[in-house]
Amino acid sequence: MKKVAVVLAGAGVFDGAEIHEAVITLLALDRGGAQVQCLAPNVDQMHVINHLAQQPGTGNRNVLEESARIARGSIIDLAQAQAGDYDAIVFPGGFGAAKNLCDFAVKGVDCSVNPQVETFIQQGLKAGKVFGFICIAPALAAKVIGKEGAKPRLTIGNDAGTAAALEQMGAEHVNAAVNEIVVDEKNKIVSTPAYMLGPGIADVAEGIEKLVGKVLEMC
Amino acid sequence: MKKVAVVLAGAGVFDGAEIHEAVITLLALDRGGAQVQCLAPNVDQMHVINHLAQQPGTGNRNVLEESARIARGSIIDLAQAQAGDYDAIVFPGGFGAAKNLCDFAVKGVDCSVNPQVETFIQQGLKAGKVFGFICIAPALAAKVIGKEGAKPRLTIGNDAGTAAALEQMGAEHVNAAVNEIVVDEKNKIVSTPAYMLGPGIADVAEGIEKLVGKVLEMC
Repeated sequence: MKKVAVVLAGAGVFDGAEIHEAVITLLALDRGGAQVQCLAPNVDQMHVINHLAQQPGTGNRNVLEESARIARGSIIDLAQAQAGDYDAIVFPGGFGAAKNLCDFAVKGVDCSVNPQVETFIQQGLKAGKVFGFICIAPALAAKVIGKEGAKPRLTIGNDAGTAAALEQMGAEHVNAAVNEIVVDEKNKIVSTPAYMLGPGIADVAEGIEKLVGKVLEMC
Repeated sequence: MKKVAVVLAGAGVFDGAEIHEAVITLLALDRGGAQVQCLAPNVDQMHVINHLAQQPGTGNRNVLEESARIARGSIIDLAQAQAGDYDAIVFPGGFGAAKNLCDFAVKGVDCSVNPQVETFIQQGLKAGKVFGFICIAPALAAKVIGKEGAKPRLTIGNDAGTAAALEQMGAEHVNAAVNEIVVDEKNKIVSTPAYMLGPGIADVAEGIEKLVGKVLEMC
């Protein structure tokens, strides 16, 4: 049975993991016969967004605790995980991937990546694991794997500014439609635009299901 | 195009809408060609559960704001909705359905239902709309529709105590497996056990996809 780590970034598109993308990933992995483990860093979110008003809300929230909502409580602290224990590692998108796992949403090409996330990706890369990056999560791959000089081949859809930023960080960007995946055979990385393009949940699901299928095939 | 209302109860299995059930419902409706509107009451949650510790957390949260996380901000206040505007109404489960939409989780057969939720269901019943109730949400149907004397035919899986409570509130309970639906042709109600049984997301999805297919067929 293939073991797959799904790294979450909270629960909610504007300040955490994109919930539809995360759940569709979990469903496709379960249907594909994989054994899934959700993981998240035990850190505060960058901020809380009231998803009704779509404006900053009050208080703060913890990324691991909020991610546990998507994982139904079955989640472990990324600090206690080893990439070597999994066959593949998948990052759903949502602003949380670019606000909590790194700060690309604020700092663009000058972003830094959460050290645990960075170590986990580097471990996985060295061990030849298969990666899936969804939506804006390819920014993590560009920053971490691009820095290693591996020039990951990725997509975030077709936004020219974001694509240029990923290339500046060391990636090769390929435009793709929401129902498509881009496969980097050399670095074993699969990506799909999801809600970087949308527009609807069925559109997004088509790309994510292809990504999960390809990730499991490449394990 | 069939218009379907999806009534949410927060975001998280232990204090809100069950996130997997809600997302699988939205995906199946979109794939089925329905136009979907998410709705939730603008009220405080009964409480907040830390989903990592699976124990009470701090602060309070608003059901409409938290539901907006699942709806990606595209949600309306149940108080501003008319059941007559939709062809069908679906309630995903999660403890929120039994803590925030009614207090069945605390008071059992003596529960009361949020007045907006009760009115919305009664309006839909009178207008001959089609209903879908998932997981523990059939408790709402038992209380509201059972009270009307319509004796709804429902399932919450096979838990004897819960089934007996639903029957005491005026429903007829039918045992069902997670991949099955129970159809009440007379009252136009479809139900499925989902995470009342589980165990996995793919199991739950099979029942919910059948439920959505049947609901759209009956519209």
